[in-house]
Amino acid sequence: MDASAYERIFYPRRLAVIGASDNILKFGGMFLHTIKSHGYEGEIFPVNPKGGTIQGLKAYATIEDVPGLVDLAVLTVPAEQTPAMAEACGRKGVAGIEALTAGFREVGPAGAALEQELLAICHKHGMRLIGPNGFGVYSPTVGLTLMPGVDFSRRPGPVGFISQSGGGACDAAYLGRSRGVYYSVMVSIGNGTDIESAELLRYFAADDRTKIVGMYLEGVRDGREFFDALRLCASVKPVVVLKGGLSDQGERGTVGHTGSLAGTRAGWDAAIASAGATPAADMPDLVDCLMAFQCLPGFTGGGAGVLAGGGLRCVESLDWASEFGFAVPPVSEATTEAVRKLLPPAGSRPGNPVDLANPVMSPKVIVPAMRALAEEPQINFLVLYQMLFYLLNEMRRMGGLKVEYHLEIAEAAREVRARLGKPLALVLPEVCSDPELWEVERGRAEARHHYVANGIPCFDSSRSAFSVLRRVADYYRP
Amino acid sequence: MDASAYERIFYPRRLAVIGASDNILKFGGMFLHTIKSHGYEGEIFPVNPKGGTIQGLKAYATIEDVPGLVDLAVLTVPAEQTPAMAEACGRKGVAGIEALTAGFREVGPAGAALEQELLAICHKHGMRLIGPNGFGVYSPTVGLTLMPGVDFSRRPGPVGFISQSGGGACDAAYLGRSRGVYYSVMVSIGNGTDIESAELLRYFAADDRTKIVGMYLEGVRDGREFFDALRLCASVKPVVVLKGGLSDQGERGTVGHTGSLAGTRAGWDAAIASAGATPAADMPDLVDCLMAFQCLPGFTGGGAGVLAGGGLRCVESLDWASEFGFAVPPVSEATTEAVRKLLPPAGSRPGNPVDLANPVMSPKVIVPAMRALAEEPQINFLVLYQMLFYLLNEMRRMGGLKVEYHLEIAEAAREVRARLGKPLALVLPEVCSDPELWEVERGRAEARHHYVANGIPCFDSSRSAFSVLRRVADYYRP
Repeated sequence: MDASAYERIFYPRRLAVIGASDNILKFGGMFLHTIKSHGYEGEIFPVNPKGGTIQGLKAYATIEDVPGLVDLAVLTVPAEQTPAMAEACGRKGVAGIEALTAGFREVGPAGAALEQELLAICHKHGMRLIGPNGFGVYSPTVGLTLMPGVDFSRRPGPVGFISQSGGGACDAAYLGRSRGVYYSVMVSIGNGTDIESAELLRYFAADDRTKIVGMYLEGVRDGREFFDALRLCASVKPVVVLKGGLSDQGERGTVGHTGSLAGTRAGWDAAIASAGATPAADMPDLVDCLMAFQCLPGFTGGGAGVLAGGGLRCVESLDWASEFGFAVPPVSEATTEAVRKLLPPAGSRPGNPVDLANPVMSPKVIVPAMRALAEEPQINFLVLYQMLFYLLNEMRRMGGLKVEYHLEIAEAAREVRARLGKPLALVLPEVCSDPELWEVERGRAEARHHYVANGIPCFDSSRSAFSVLRRVADYYRP
Repeated sequence: MDASAYERIFYPRRLAVIGASDNILKFGGMFLHTIKSHGYEGEIFPVNPKGGTIQGLKAYATIEDVPGLVDLAVLTVPAEQTPAMAEACGRKGVAGIEALTAGFREVGPAGAALEQELLAICHKHGMRLIGPNGFGVYSPTVGLTLMPGVDFSRRPGPVGFISQSGGGACDAAYLGRSRGVYYSVMVSIGNGTDIESAELLRYFAADDRTKIVGMYLEGVRDGREFFDALRLCASVKPVVVLKGGLSDQGERGTVGHTGSLAGTRAGWDAAIASAGATPAADMPDLVDCLMAFQCLPGFTGGGAGVLAGGGLRCVESLDWASEFGFAVPPVSEATTEAVRKLLPPAGSRPGNPVDLANPVMSPKVIVPAMRALAEEPQINFLVLYQMLFYLLNEMRRMGGLKVEYHLEIAEAAREVRARLGKPLALVLPEVCSDPELWEVERGRAEARHHYVANGIPCFDSSRSAFSVLRRVADYYRP
């Protein structure tokens, strides 16, 4: 397929909703409502035999009645009606159709036959099929979501996403929103009858908008084809893969012809890694990896300079850095002394890690200490622990939650990175999300947004920080 | 030490604060202020050579001037003044003193000598020492916290806690509050010069208030003594241990005389398990374990009946159940058919797991499906996934966040457990904690509180659910 066809399907300017309805409790009504609510920027053409006006838009009895080009047509009609509608779309010259409904091969032989019929119609017309039985496309550039997520972010970003689960795609979209991870386009492929994982990996490999790829994978159509595409894509940009269906108990797709890879998590992780891609453990871990790749292109790790308030956090940083193969190297006597002068005398300790004594030390101390550590040649990146809860809760008690520590720290981190090439990662643990203290969580979420927007990945725990950083460093290792 | 001395120290009715001050920026002022703010229920006697009134309370020039018994005295004075103060406490017949300040063996030989002097004074008077260099006692029964946490829960509970980190104890207290885990008494032992881990394990083993023990451990004074006490305590109640300082990079205490255990996480986990205790990976994981032990006494696991909305959640449950050695056994045709009748036709699947089609299916469907699964003899417990975010966010958009699904589900779970002895665990993942959607997080926190209060542990992820349940089942395995 030439690139312009992909462009028309993933960034459609003119969209038809076949089976559109005024009733938003009906499938076709709900999807049209979602598309409008989310603020799709292109033109929408409702199609319904009754014509007239649907949800305030002029409706057409058939797609062939729509004036001019249609890029993408969404079929919200029952499965058995899709071949006829696809046929009309083909005659119209639509670039792609998306069949949202279930009722195809996943329900048995009759559904499988219907699915093949649909595919044959698409082939005949040179038209592409997304799905069936998937949520289709979320495309922030044009403000389109066919997924049931009216609160997805409208901001486009560098991550292309492929999902064999519609719900999983929604989770990834929302998790991304909360973690500052933004998408170029997200495709929920459903049954993957036509457009599926391997093709999308090749598409994303060549797509300039997409710098990082994430995917949720259950089965693959052809193991060799999939791994070739995975290797190709991972050779030019990071690809993070969450594989579901690893257990003997679960149903799973076969990989290749032997099924030999359809085994344990460790086996799959190894296979993914050997293709040059990055394995993820679950959806939050996947999105954490995407965030880290988004913030830290080219990160190769090595020695961490750690700043943390309190002995436990320092011990923990050493433990998890070790566990994931990072050094927390000693620093020079001069640096140690310089940092000592910044710290309060009680409960602090200079060196590496720097014990800041207090879980929420002021940037007046943190910033010069960060700068001093970053000057050490054996330190390649910085990790800062901030237990924002303690600060925010204290502020809440004193009547005002306004905290701008993160502005100063992010600014200093940017300066250090620009000058020395040494990035910062944050550990911002959840300490207490009690209903009575819930406002405090908002402060943490705000700080996280600011940090990530400034290229500083934020993790919920030390374990996830070093685990994710390890995988990023492994990807970029020469 | 006889039990009444512990009682006086951990549940003091009459408390002296030595070095108390009106200035809450000073150490002695801050601690007195915290104790008052938290709502300590006993009598407080500020001690300061100036006498007069401090923070509205009558102050005494020396502790010996206080009329009547004093159970516990908190020394907030600088390290070098502690021996004289301890001497006066000994003469007064105080049961225990707690030295909050640093400046002892952790700062070098002079500090170590001071620490030994303090210990000798305590021994001479038959008085016990907590610390120095620790946060001491948090005791919800009497409303006391010496830790800087005025928002700790006031509710006592079944968990005794020992920490070699003051900050770690605070984290555990707050994490417990947000997860519905409550404490009998929490002791931050600091340098552990007198009262330390092994003694506290023996104390908690015999303590009727304490049904479960949690601990954060860095080093131990005597490896044999520690492991004997750990084995003893774990033989009568669950003990969950988080070991910090596992890396070659970190400073760590030695275990026994050989240091042979001072190795990897896996090595320590094995040693802890061989003592019959339960290893934890980090503080949130530790508190999750405490929550699960609190909710599920006697849980031995076996076969899980899983209910989840969406294919990904079903696949994930099978994967993580397998990974941690649980079965998700098939159910009878009759049960499958009964559940099928409850479900919406599109996107659902009966069996085990039950795919509820929708991440937030109504209790009208969930409750009878739970009951049907629980009747199957090969199912020993239930796991329900609720992606509350999707429901709560929809409610928020529609103008009202009131959701009471958890009330119905918790009630049904209680009935199933009472009738069939089969408990429920919840997976309540964070989907999106965006600043703009932050109210939604509150709904999740409220649901979690309600569930845990009804004996239903709630986990953030499938991985943590099955990982924690595995350890609980291992503890109770005959």
